Amino acid sequence: MTRGAISRDPNGAGLSIGGYLLQRLQDYGVGHVFGIPGDYVLSFYTMLEESPLEAIGCTREDCAGFAADAYARVNGMGALCVTYCVGGLSVCNSVAGAYAEKSPVVMITGSPGLRERIHNPLLHHMVRNWRTQYDVFEKLCVAGAELSDPLTAFREIDRVLAACQRFSRPVYLEIPRDMVRVTPDAAPPFESPPSESDPHALAEAVEETAARIRDARQPVLLLGVEVHRFGLQDLALRLAESAGIPIAATMLGKGVIAETHPLYMGLYEGALGRAEVTKYVEQSDCVLMLGTFMTDINLGIYTANLDLGNCIYATSEELRVRRHHYHDVRLEDFLKQLVEAAPKPSSPPPPAPTEWDKPAFALQPEEPLSVMRLVARLDGQLTKDTIVIADIGDSLFASTELTTHGGTEFLSPAYYTSMGFATPAALGACVARPDARVVALVGDGAFQMTGSEFSSLARRGASAIVIVLDNGGYNTERLLHPGDYRFNDVQPWAYHKLPELVGGGRGYEVRTEAQFDAALTAAWNDHTGPSLIHAHLTGEPSTALKRLGERMQRTVVGD
Amino acid sequence: MTRGAISRDPNGAGLSIGGYLLQRLQDYGVGHVFGIPGDYVLSFYTMLEESPLEAIGCTREDCAGFAADAYARVNGMGALCVTYCVGGLSVCNSVAGAYAEKSPVVMITGSPGLRERIHNPLLHHMVRNWRTQYDVFEKLCVAGAELSDPLTAFREIDRVLAACQRFSRPVYLEIPRDMVRVTPDAAPPFESPPSESDPHALAEAVEETAARIRDARQPVLLLGVEVHRFGLQDLALRLAESAGIPIAATMLGKGVIAETHPLYMGLYEGALGRAEVTKYVEQSDCVLMLGTFMTDINLGIYTANLDLGNCIYATSEELRVRRHHYHDVRLEDFLKQLVEAAPKPSSPPPPAPTEWDKPAFALQPEEPLSVMRLVARLDGQLTKDTIVIADIGDSLFASTELTTHGGTEFLSPAYYTSMGFATPAALGACVARPDARVVALVGDGAFQMTGSEFSSLARRGASAIVIVLDNGGYNTERLLHPGDYRFNDVQPWAYHKLPELVGGGRGYEVRTEAQFDAALTAAWNDHTGPSLIHAHLTGEPSTALKRLGERMQRTVVGD
Repeated sequence: MTRGAISRDPNGAGLSIGGYLLQRLQDYGVGHVFGIPGDYVLSFYTMLEESPLEAIGCTREDCAGFAADAYARVNGMGALCVTYCVGGLSVCNSVAGAYAEKSPVVMITGSPGLRERIHNPLLHHMVRNWRTQYDVFEKLCVAGAELSDPLTAFREIDRVLAACQRFSRPVYLEIPRDMVRVTPDAAPPFESPPSESDPHALAEAVEETAARIRDARQPVLLLGVEVHRFGLQDLALRLAESAGIPIAATMLGKGVIAETHPLYMGLYEGALGRAEVTKYVEQSDCVLMLGTFMTDINLGIYTANLDLGNCIYATSEELRVRRHHYHDVRLEDFLKQLVEAAPKPSSPPPPAPTEWDKPAFALQPEEPLSVMRLVARLDGQLTKDTIVIADIGDSLFASTELTTHGGTEFLSPAYYTSMGFATPAALGACVARPDARVVALVGDGAFQMTGSEFSSLARRGASAIVIVLDNGGYNTERLLHPGDYRFNDVQPWAYHKLPELVGGGRGYEVRTEAQFDAALTAAWNDHTGPSLIHAHLTGEPSTALKRLGERMQRTVVGD
Repeated sequence: MTRGAISRDPNGAGLSIGGYLLQRLQDYGVGHVFGIPGDYVLSFYTMLEESPLEAIGCTREDCAGFAADAYARVNGMGALCVTYCVGGLSVCNSVAGAYAEKSPVVMITGSPGLRERIHNPLLHHMVRNWRTQYDVFEKLCVAGAELSDPLTAFREIDRVLAACQRFSRPVYLEIPRDMVRVTPDAAPPFESPPSESDPHALAEAVEETAARIRDARQPVLLLGVEVHRFGLQDLALRLAESAGIPIAATMLGKGVIAETHPLYMGLYEGALGRAEVTKYVEQSDCVLMLGTFMTDINLGIYTANLDLGNCIYATSEELRVRRHHYHDVRLEDFLKQLVEAAPKPSSPPPPAPTEWDKPAFALQPEEPLSVMRLVARLDGQLTKDTIVIADIGDSLFASTELTTHGGTEFLSPAYYTSMGFATPAALGACVARPDARVVALVGDGAFQMTGSEFSSLARRGASAIVIVLDNGGYNTERLLHPGDYRFNDVQPWAYHKLPELVGGGRGYEVRTEAQFDAALTAAWNDHTGPSLIHAHLTGEPSTALKRLGERMQRTVVGD
């Protein structure tokens, strides 16, 4: 993929694009870079840590933006380095402030590798299309460049840094993660969703799908989050029940239907998930995917082994049967008419595994607490009136082992994967459903970002339970990109003392299974306000995260 | 200004644009609105508080975005209400997450009134031009509208909310604050700065300016922040010293030169500032304004009474002498050649007031602490190695009374006025200038937004002093818009306990002058890590804020 005369330096020094940028920053007197690492920018962060520049970790991206701004005001130029979209779009306000007040901040951001974009997948952190973040920052910066072509990258870095100094205003530099050490170009257009169903296409699609279900030996329904977003749960269940078809869900679609339903098998996550479910789905001769986002994480980071020749893929944006497409067929119309057609396989499908058929949890009181055991204990507590909110990382991966009991019980930013969702989301859920018991699982890094929202829970007297999974830093990143990088550490907080700071709620600090059991029981019985359980965890990650780490390491560093 | 058949309802009920929006939100099942009020959205917030909808205050805007997202997932639609740019651009990431994951969030934002835009001033919170925020959210929302025309506003609200429901994705509604209760349209173009000096224009401008200085009876130099941003302090001082011209500074330019300089008079803030300075500047027959932003706050919220016929206005973007303009003259070139011309008034200017000629501070040990007395005590502590960082509100207004001693000593977002700048900015300043003593003044509301960054100070062992000015909420807003609004309250935190939470630094809680004096002395002698002084204040605001409140009340509510 290398073009032109620029060498591909494996250490990132010298003339690699990342190395050149680090060199030029020093030429302009920049000695420190503020920010928070994320996977799309890990390859650059690694190079940064090995350079004479110092990376300064912050608790929040916008804080990093403000810090870089103040640094720039004092030092003459400042730099900020954040990941794609979830990081970048969190600094809009700080960068806009630097624009308005003419502070020369260099915003550096990673983005998906060019080679990852070729088939136009929905990668995590993406908003509208590849250009969205750049489009936004064109409005907030005085100059910008996407360093996607080695032939021009050095000149572009020079042009942009010169503009930063000349206008004393922020500039934007985006480096696709496979360009940090050196390549082509692709910017797919945004596709607007179809408007209303073409009746003839709709009729033909329903007829073909119904016929495929009738003829199927082992049909499967794979449900995605759109089923919930568009309120199609009842229709989906009617289809499954009338035809006796087993159901699986994607990670983002977890909880779309009660996981205790007799037809429910569990989550389908390719090689990352339970082997029985993966096997049953992948052996199916008719996988009806309803409202599923074909995202990297939903597809088990591309470990899914689904034969498109056996799939019917119906979302709010497209309908594909095997390898042909129907245009202008709305998901709801399609599902409604399919239910009316009431297709039924000619013979009953083979027995499917069931998610809720788990061994009972037996407490090991003195054992140090692991995330998997914590989740196993929590699982027994869930009812149909529980809303579980999982932040990202192992909060999410471990939570996939929970069994939900209702239609709106599991909330997680499982596609966009923005850190810090859980605590404020707990507030939103408490306000929307004051009768429900809200339990939020959040990592220590994420909690430092938005844990202050516990204050609003306390202010309302909302009895949410926030469980801080303390593994001493950005543990998912450690697994995705092993090595002793300081940027994955966070300051160790006494999280259980937060209720004292904010003047409300109750805090618990736990290290063993017995302590967690007691704290969870006490919190569950407390209806006077929020509880915060600070859970010191063993380093042992969840099974899913372990599998994910093994699969992702190469993608993360952009090799 | 009213057009069409829509009545201007003084209570905002019924058919006003704001009232219609509140009614339609309820029609869609929205019962709560998450967010943080700000002046551009106060008129709508007031209407909201009087409606059946409940406003839910959050500690951070992006948290409010996440909360509204979770609420939308559970409830079917959610709403978020934030102020213009500093609020709106802080929720880019949460709204993008809602877009990516199809959560139907209605983002409502205020903006400057149409009538405020007519002469194209630099209002606070503005980034590039009036459209910047809308341009950004066009990339992050499925539909949007600026409700600037009463003839179409109701239809636009309907169109946008329908798109929110139909696509289950976020939408954007911007209401200029004078449109909430009902008018015309103006979107001025962004003007790019000039590139390099036209030598003939430069020569003529310098010649004319030098002549005006020579002929002046009472010349004044008014310095703005660009003097610092573009490194022109020495040149400006040489000009003043060689000619014996007294110097004033704008609020955003505070500290651009040492305020102990014999020629320095103090800040010029129109009717908001010290009367002697205002009088001297406004009686001048030659005001040379260097690198000054003509912003609302710099101009004392338009109470400045400067005769343009006596002004020379030189910035990085334009050069105006009296009422004629020179194009293509760079600020630095202009100032350099002006210094070379060494103009000197034919007779010495009359004696000017001096900023540093203040009465000595006498402690009143048992007195409850007021913000003005706190600042007066702090003032005695400042040296040339102190960097003062002021957050917005009374942190800034009261701090204008401090006397700085060096070139980079005062940092504040005094134009863009984004809350929460101070604590992370303290980190940036500590990293950039490890030898300096950094003191941050921050209100309680602002501290709840980004006070977690104290953790990063502790982690580095940086001995910054963060003073939390606790007046129980958004006190500036209370003064701008008097009334017992709950949305101005914040949860009362025990801020001094934050060091225990984050595991570093030392906390002090003070209520009297003696307690503050002791805490400040102890913190100043502590070089082991950061200090947090939780200062319970009397409700008495600074003189400047009091004057500001009186002037701003009408603008804030959009009347």
